[in-house]
Amino acid sequence: MSHLLSGRAETPTQSRILTYVRDEGPLSRMDLAARLNVSRTTVAAEVGRLVELGLAEDGGPAASRGGRRSTLVDLDAGLRFVGVQLGATSMRVAMTDGRLGVLARASSPGADIRRGPEAVLAEVIVLIRKVLADHGIERPAGIGIGVPGPVDFQVGVPVSPPIMPGWDGYPVRDALSREFGSPVLLDNDVNVMALGEQHNGVARSASDFLFVKIGTGIGCGIVVQRHLYRGADGCAGDIGHIRLDQNGPVCACGNHGCLEAFFGGAALARDATAAARTGRSDVLADLLEQHGSLTSEHVGLAITQGDPASLQLVRDGGRRVGDVLASLVSFFNPGLIVIGGGVAGLGHALLAEIRSVVYRQSLPLATGNMPVVLSELGNDAGVIGAARLISDAVYAAG
Amino acid sequence: MSHLLSGRAETPTQSRILTYVRDEGPLSRMDLAARLNVSRTTVAAEVGRLVELGLAEDGGPAASRGGRRSTLVDLDAGLRFVGVQLGATSMRVAMTDGRLGVLARASSPGADIRRGPEAVLAEVIVLIRKVLADHGIERPAGIGIGVPGPVDFQVGVPVSPPIMPGWDGYPVRDALSREFGSPVLLDNDVNVMALGEQHNGVARSASDFLFVKIGTGIGCGIVVQRHLYRGADGCAGDIGHIRLDQNGPVCACGNHGCLEAFFGGAALARDATAAARTGRSDVLADLLEQHGSLTSEHVGLAITQGDPASLQLVRDGGRRVGDVLASLVSFFNPGLIVIGGGVAGLGHALLAEIRSVVYRQSLPLATGNMPVVLSELGNDAGVIGAARLISDAVYAAG
Repeated sequence: MSHLLSGRAETPTQSRILTYVRDEGPLSRMDLAARLNVSRTTVAAEVGRLVELGLAEDGGPAASRGGRRSTLVDLDAGLRFVGVQLGATSMRVAMTDGRLGVLARASSPGADIRRGPEAVLAEVIVLIRKVLADHGIERPAGIGIGVPGPVDFQVGVPVSPPIMPGWDGYPVRDALSREFGSPVLLDNDVNVMALGEQHNGVARSASDFLFVKIGTGIGCGIVVQRHLYRGADGCAGDIGHIRLDQNGPVCACGNHGCLEAFFGGAALARDATAAARTGRSDVLADLLEQHGSLTSEHVGLAITQGDPASLQLVRDGGRRVGDVLASLVSFFNPGLIVIGGGVAGLGHALLAEIRSVVYRQSLPLATGNMPVVLSELGNDAGVIGAARLISDAVYAAG
Repeated sequence: MSHLLSGRAETPTQSRILTYVRDEGPLSRMDLAARLNVSRTTVAAEVGRLVELGLAEDGGPAASRGGRRSTLVDLDAGLRFVGVQLGATSMRVAMTDGRLGVLARASSPGADIRRGPEAVLAEVIVLIRKVLADHGIERPAGIGIGVPGPVDFQVGVPVSPPIMPGWDGYPVRDALSREFGSPVLLDNDVNVMALGEQHNGVARSASDFLFVKIGTGIGCGIVVQRHLYRGADGCAGDIGHIRLDQNGPVCACGNHGCLEAFFGGAALARDATAAARTGRSDVLADLLEQHGSLTSEHVGLAITQGDPASLQLVRDGGRRVGDVLASLVSFFNPGLIVIGGGVAGLGHALLAEIRSVVYRQSLPLATGNMPVVLSELGNDAGVIGAARLISDAVYAAG
């Protein structure tokens, strides 16, 4: 359990041992030798090395099968990963065990990505240190982090992120890695959310699926054959900036009529405020007076109070998201679409509208077996996915 | 060179030998042993088996490097693949060598896919028999065939193809395989055209790209990490039925306002005929009188004669294709877009309009390094790609 020497798997055999044990629980050395088609001596040597690396440990005696007794191999019980999800106005940290079960969470209520990388990362570091210290962990085996903007995954930096002023090219990965002495990977927030749903959510059995995040921004994680597809420049899935109407509202990206400018969280707050101020919704007007400003959550609350103007806002937005998704279904023929992110908290009114448009506009062949569902993990999707991102790298050979 | 016993590679090592020799030309056994990290004895045994299978042959002595003389290994010089491309109104057959160089071509001038599978395949079989007989080939090592509609690739049948009446579920693959005693693979026409451009065209060095066919129908081949992406139900790339306007013209699929209903070959012929009949284009009116009906080629001809109405038709169509592609660029972030198919014969007027819309509407990060180009292979893209499809299967292990 000591992590004096911690690291990554060094050989394909070590990697396969870790993956089997992660996915199926403790396995005997005999089992592993049979599955890997290698000798028990090889298994013993590779497991020994994994123990030295702090990745595996002795899991006690295996149930006897009549022959020689074998010993179980398990993931090191002290193995800890950290997943971080930064949103425009949210910051979540989770610490997991080796199978990515969440052991501790922390979040910051007043987070604002626009404060810039130094201030935001300083707060991230405080949160990580706190969850680690609370559980007596000195150093995590790895940290994954998702941010709300395009990322150069190879270099570990944000690239021209429209809603993250000051972050362009900032060495997020290396800054965290230096701070904790652990391997770190940085990715787009929708990519890590897609990984989270794949690991432990509604997309567990989907090979090709889309994870659509509707939050302050709108984006899409693309999974092809169980692997993230990032595109030629790493900016695949940027569906928030698909243009619906050249005469539409101005977008944060500078263009007019992007999907996000019609129905991101900011657009919904804008339209709800207008409805409150122009007398189209008394419910929203009351909420605005109480809180000083409106968010997508207030729109959801107004819907539960039977406010027709709020329902119409969500239906209009859902129809626009559905229009875009119908095109993507024709193009990509996914096996599943998962809807997540803060605005997805609007729930079934939104989902019903998206489904109605997608199922009406796409060819039957592409939608016959294609569910459109809400995220199962909610706020945990990003942090579990970020932990999965780095654990995959730690468990992969070399 | 005898093909008494012809078959597929049986082991991963045989497969790697064939792939190296295909891509790099004849290689010495010594070279192959070093590249594959296996003994020369193993190489000798595997090459011996490939010779028995009719896939490889002795390529003469290798240049001496001072040590023992080694013998070159080459693809069997008698190896022949057949590629077939069926369009709505076209039928092309090519016979290739093992590296997919085209040795012979045949086509049918009066082809019409609506004649149904028995009649069309009977003609395909006659064309294949002819190219084989002209070159003294008894049996090809494999046949690939592309058809203009959705395909169940695993089963080898078309699935509800809108412009192929009578073909739904017809066992195209098995019918051809029985006829020639060779392995056969069936795929969508745009998928095989994408493979053709990847093998020997403008997409040779692209890892992630889109091949957009604008012919009678409009479709898109999607290549991810150098492999075709077919989608969860095998109908990925069906962009011709993305809806642009619910009040638009009726489409062959039964919906209104699909991209294809605005600018497939049939739509362009319809609009050109209307322009001729309503006095908007004297040039098209003359062509209509001469030929009795109009095609996209006549529109191209009218443009070269300075007809503004024809140019406007192509610009309007290119803008609509560009609108769809701009969305797909935001979603998929391809490294390259290749435009092909019959209507692509309209050339630079069409390409200029598509480029203008795509580059204007997509985020700079996604288009900075993304060329939009015309197919280099033209009419050969489909037949070379179909040959590539089946040769990949023959060269792949068991």
